[in-house]
Amino acid sequence: MPRYKATIEYDGTFFNGFQKQKNTSNTIQEAVETALLKLTLETVTVFGSGRTDTGVHATGQVIHFDLSKGWSLHNIQRGLNFYLENIAILQVEEVDENFHARFDAIQREYVYTILNRQAFPVLEAHRVWHVKPFLDVIKMQEAAVLLIGQHDFKAFRSNECRSLRTKRTIDYFDVEKRGEKIYCQVKSRSFLHNQVRIMVGTLVWYALGKITLEDIRIALNTGVKHNIGPTAPAEGLCFKNVVY
Amino acid sequence: MPRYKATIEYDGTFFNGFQKQKNTSNTIQEAVETALLKLTLETVTVFGSGRTDTGVHATGQVIHFDLSKGWSLHNIQRGLNFYLENIAILQVEEVDENFHARFDAIQREYVYTILNRQAFPVLEAHRVWHVKPFLDVIKMQEAAVLLIGQHDFKAFRSNECRSLRTKRTIDYFDVEKRGEKIYCQVKSRSFLHNQVRIMVGTLVWYALGKITLEDIRIALNTGVKHNIGPTAPAEGLCFKNVVY
Repeated sequence: MPRYKATIEYDGTFFNGFQKQKNTSNTIQEAVETALLKLTLETVTVFGSGRTDTGVHATGQVIHFDLSKGWSLHNIQRGLNFYLENIAILQVEEVDENFHARFDAIQREYVYTILNRQAFPVLEAHRVWHVKPFLDVIKMQEAAVLLIGQHDFKAFRSNECRSLRTKRTIDYFDVEKRGEKIYCQVKSRSFLHNQVRIMVGTLVWYALGKITLEDIRIALNTGVKHNIGPTAPAEGLCFKNVVY
Repeated sequence: MPRYKATIEYDGTFFNGFQKQKNTSNTIQEAVETALLKLTLETVTVFGSGRTDTGVHATGQVIHFDLSKGWSLHNIQRGLNFYLENIAILQVEEVDENFHARFDAIQREYVYTILNRQAFPVLEAHRVWHVKPFLDVIKMQEAAVLLIGQHDFKAFRSNECRSLRTKRTIDYFDVEKRGEKIYCQVKSRSFLHNQVRIMVGTLVWYALGKITLEDIRIALNTGVKHNIGPTAPAEGLCFKNVVY
């Protein structure tokens, strides 16, 4: 059976996250599987490279799925886009039958966007975390540097996170201000549940003087969720890219 | 009476343009006047620096209005933002009683955004013109250069435009591609009705090979609306800045 890899974009506002779940409908996985059923008349399972939460966006989520016969890439893209809403198939390619969107990924990239001004977001509504007090990006970058490299991120994950291993390696963590927006770009092979949002919350808490760099060091060393930042809101997060 | 100048942002999707009109409600001018009435209990007239059409956005529209007594700038901003939706007051300053948002402007800046890819816009829905065929920005810039400087833009305005004089001077017209998006940035003291959208439509038509540079030269010289591009959709246009 031919296997296809697709890069997709979605507006997380309209979905209950990526992953199909009991008692939860309207997920991105379901929407793509339904579009595949309409297009191919086959029941197809979609595998994603990462499970984004409710409200989290993507411009570069990667999925794979198998079809019983070969299709032209153009027809898959156009056909799925015809049936989809708030999700777009950006690119489709045929891949080796052993390719796996989740297990073969060697790096994932997220960008978290903060709108740092008095007035609430209008054109960026549902795309940013609105933080009113002035944030010093030099301070945010100072805190980000502490998180780069291999650490036990036990303190930086949600209580529902079920990963047995909590060591992760942050390859890259950059904070950049352009106009009123602050972009936090972070790359790693994989992340714990809510790790990016808690790390961004911690950068902001440090910039606001609510915690110290020493507090962050202690959280990394002890794994205790104490004096770190809050989980930043989902709407500021966007899944940008996967490297295989 | 103290006069106030404010810089405002709005999502044009939600409004029937800036200017209050007979038989048309839900304009930006009305929304701000209503918020001013609620805040100050005064009937206030709002003057804008430019009249954006239905669907056109702004991140830097400038308005002015008079109040019967002095207010703190912070209280005006916070108070209006409390009553507004899909419009945000970004900044307020007190200005000379002779200041006029429209007549004192010496330069206006618009950015028109095109999404140039196969898949429809998702995260940029209602913010871009979706053009599927590949657009060569070098060609678009070639056409833009023809429009820079002082010309009679009679061919480049809507049929409803009532300006008696149709000479305008384009100070700056730059086309830049970043990823899948093409940004057309244009600056002039003032524009005719729909001029920016027709100029952008013309750049796109030229890049697609539907018209020639000679066609554009002829339209500029004769003022005849023939072999120029269509009026690009409102949703790609954003009013960025006003210089006084």
